[in-house]
Amino acid sequence: MQQPSTTEQGFQVESFFAERMKNTPRSFIREILKVAVSEEIISFAGGLPNPEIFPMEAIREAAVRVLGQRGREALQYSNSEGYLPLRRYISHWYHENAGMEVSPEDILITSGSQQGLDLIGKVVINPGDRIIIEEPGYLGAIQAFSLYQPQFIPVPLKTTGMDLEVLDRELNSGNPRMMYLIPDFQNPSGISYSREVREQIAERIRGKNILLAEDTPYSDIRFSGERAPGFYPMLPEQTILLGTFSKTVVPGFRLGWIVARKELMDKLIIAKQAADLHTNIFTQQLLYDYLINNDIKSHIHLISNLYGRQCHAMLEALKTYFPKDVQYTVPKGGMFLWVTLPEGQSSLELFNRALEHKVAFVPGNPFYVDGSKHRSTLRLNFSCSDEATIFEGVRRIAGVLG
Amino acid sequence: MQQPSTTEQGFQVESFFAERMKNTPRSFIREILKVAVSEEIISFAGGLPNPEIFPMEAIREAAVRVLGQRGREALQYSNSEGYLPLRRYISHWYHENAGMEVSPEDILITSGSQQGLDLIGKVVINPGDRIIIEEPGYLGAIQAFSLYQPQFIPVPLKTTGMDLEVLDRELNSGNPRMMYLIPDFQNPSGISYSREVREQIAERIRGKNILLAEDTPYSDIRFSGERAPGFYPMLPEQTILLGTFSKTVVPGFRLGWIVARKELMDKLIIAKQAADLHTNIFTQQLLYDYLINNDIKSHIHLISNLYGRQCHAMLEALKTYFPKDVQYTVPKGGMFLWVTLPEGQSSLELFNRALEHKVAFVPGNPFYVDGSKHRSTLRLNFSCSDEATIFEGVRRIAGVLG
Repeated sequence: MQQPSTTEQGFQVESFFAERMKNTPRSFIREILKVAVSEEIISFAGGLPNPEIFPMEAIREAAVRVLGQRGREALQYSNSEGYLPLRRYISHWYHENAGMEVSPEDILITSGSQQGLDLIGKVVINPGDRIIIEEPGYLGAIQAFSLYQPQFIPVPLKTTGMDLEVLDRELNSGNPRMMYLIPDFQNPSGISYSREVREQIAERIRGKNILLAEDTPYSDIRFSGERAPGFYPMLPEQTILLGTFSKTVVPGFRLGWIVARKELMDKLIIAKQAADLHTNIFTQQLLYDYLINNDIKSHIHLISNLYGRQCHAMLEALKTYFPKDVQYTVPKGGMFLWVTLPEGQSSLELFNRALEHKVAFVPGNPFYVDGSKHRSTLRLNFSCSDEATIFEGVRRIAGVLG
Repeated sequence: MQQPSTTEQGFQVESFFAERMKNTPRSFIREILKVAVSEEIISFAGGLPNPEIFPMEAIREAAVRVLGQRGREALQYSNSEGYLPLRRYISHWYHENAGMEVSPEDILITSGSQQGLDLIGKVVINPGDRIIIEEPGYLGAIQAFSLYQPQFIPVPLKTTGMDLEVLDRELNSGNPRMMYLIPDFQNPSGISYSREVREQIAERIRGKNILLAEDTPYSDIRFSGERAPGFYPMLPEQTILLGTFSKTVVPGFRLGWIVARKELMDKLIIAKQAADLHTNIFTQQLLYDYLINNDIKSHIHLISNLYGRQCHAMLEALKTYFPKDVQYTVPKGGMFLWVTLPEGQSSLELFNRALEHKVAFVPGNPFYVDGSKHRSTLRLNFSCSDEATIFEGVRRIAGVLG
């Protein structure tokens, strides 16, 4: 075929970009992960589940069963709502494990819960809308929502959840359209909302024109403490609940879900259809087959125990090697903990020194929407390193502390 | 867990919806497909590849190999750009089969080409932007772009491509931001752009601030005629090229791709990351394994021959049963043909009568952005019915023609 010469000129590629693309934060973490990917570096920077615990054999068996038994239907176009047996399974899971009544009709399968965040942004956010988020906040949500050009209202986290005084102030000054939070083992801080803070927040927004997006990626990965009530049962009409199989089964399938009531769900389905028609139906069926043919509760127990031991090792190492004026959270689940250096110390500078000693973490900066203000915090991931490596890594960081 | 009473009141769920959701077209086709799903109805309404030809056994073998050999990496989080060997394969395919040089760095794997359309809309379209589309136009693109609130400028199709006179008028009146077209075996019309029309269009927009989105879902499913040059080689700096494996392998994996040059690609990757982090890596690896271990050219040949026979049967049936004043296109590939009834006849009324005789198609209305204006056209799909069924279905439609 001919290759006509490219004589285009006179146009500027920048002119192709929509306004919304000018607000996109650079992916700071992507850059850090690129630096930290070398074999010899001990990395607490990632946010990956531990692949050692992936149920490889069970997934292989499920793949063979689905392709053998369900056949061509597993590979054809499918509906936007998602595979009904999988939605029924999730409904049943909520009933059995959280005492929550969620109809399969109120569940939409998404391509990872990141897509859930994007769909919510698309359906809900007008440019300029005030969106309350946690500070420090989850980067994936900040990135997804940013493209719909909201005004972020960060509310600082205490160890029991959002700072209610700041929340009150923000609720009273202007009309927030949405509020986004991760009540269990929050990313990046590792904290969980106490029952009291949950009830206080629900009380404050009940009946107001504020949508609550409750993200629960880590909720089943608990290694101590008791499950507290979720927001969805407290505020079913104004809560969108997000869940995912990325932490309890595998992330590579990109399978998550959204729970929302009918009027919201109708709009979310329209947005879903426009976004990718439907989520990969083969892996939806594969996952469903895996879930009904394996003891998933035992598997989650295994993951929770493993991460619990790794978290414990990290806390022990921090106690052993870090000076007393360094503070850190004590997670009861999830994959992360959060370190606060003494006032004035820069975690970005610490990152650079640590990298010279072949250990990496994520400096706090990207988790604040005003990235430059807070610099004495950092996120440590404990799910992907064994206990000896955790001790050695923390020792190295301690060695370069200012 | 307690179930607090839902005492929410005072808010209105409609107030949660962003402005952009008010423009969403109802999915007319979804409604029709629901009606036409019964076993006893002969349906030319769908747009599905023929599942009889899905390579079930080869896909099962690939699944087992990937889960056995590549292991945990196939199930972990992955990068937003997509699986590099798969991107290299696509690059090589373009070189071998279309004489096109496309670097793997210029290829982004998407969750079906529907996601490609959504990402393009997100990166490119500001509310109110003028977007040139074909009339009749592809519904998936209209739906995806609609959520970014453009002003659609439909340009009528002739049997050789867009009407150049109308295109000239639209190019001269105001500044279109983007132009979207399917040059080969267009959906819904089945027409292909002639070489001359392609060159004329490229000539008109070269160097202007107009981005061209060239969608090629059916391009490899050709059963007669010669491949004409694509737009991307003619205008590489201002073209975004979309491709998919949905028609050549299987749709259920939701695997497509976008080709774009660096500056555009950088923004598309940011949007991709915000949309779903990355596409299902297990099926990316599975598809790649399938592609390198099977004779994909023979498989595509098989599909093209099958659809060619089915298309031929439909044309023969139309010639046999339809009155001479009904016009229809003669596709050289793809899955659809387009029927124009004599002036004044309503295809929506015909649809209702046809359904009583247990045969379905898609009335033309949804393929026009002004749905009410054109009503004497309809789309027939031939990829999913055998030749005898096609004859019987066309006979039944002919029986209820006005």
